[in-house]
Amino acid sequence: MNLPERSLAKALIYITYKNGVLDPQGLAVKGALASLGFEGVGDVRVGKYIEIELADSPPEEMKARAEKMCRDLLANPVIEDFRIELPASDALDAQDTQ
Amino acid sequence: MNLPERSLAKALIYITYKNGVLDPQGLAVKGALASLGFEGVGDVRVGKYIEIELADSPPEEMKARAEKMCRDLLANPVIEDFRIELPASDALDAQDTQ
Repeated sequence: MNLPERSLAKALIYITYKNGVLDPQGLAVKGALASLGFEGVGDVRVGKYIEIELADSPPEEMKARAEKMCRDLLANPVIEDFRIELPASDALDAQDTQ
Repeated sequence: MNLPERSLAKALIYITYKNGVLDPQGLAVKGALASLGFEGVGDVRVGKYIEIELADSPPEEMKARAEKMCRDLLANPVIEDFRIELPASDALDAQDTQ
């Protein structure tokens, strides 16, 4: 492990297709739900949800790093939108207990 | 389109590997970030983020339907956790403007 001594904080990244871009996985899920008997299902969109631990630093800095990661690697800006959240660490722990 | 006349509301579903389950896609992303020169990156976990439009009904009912969809199709309960959110529709629109 090549991590620095600094503590880590999580960044949450949500990547979705832009409106109007065909989402084949979403269509497949919609069809599968219908064939399983679920009724009244409208549009289904499937995206990615990524949790990344980053060296803890001021929120603007962490957000800027996460945005650069999205543009350089994680998302395809031509067809995808991304959204970044920096949760309070205890809020995230509370979520994880589901 | 075989939708009922009722209006639709979105359910947001987050699917992640359980703690302790190996996440090969997360490892690949971590390695790729390192090779792109991003430093101080800790654990990376890649999950799914699904937006489903369901017939609008009381929140408990919508949540129950979304949970059943997760158990029956969307998640693998053996290795994955899921979490469901029912956003106020205007809150979601505000997110989308990013």
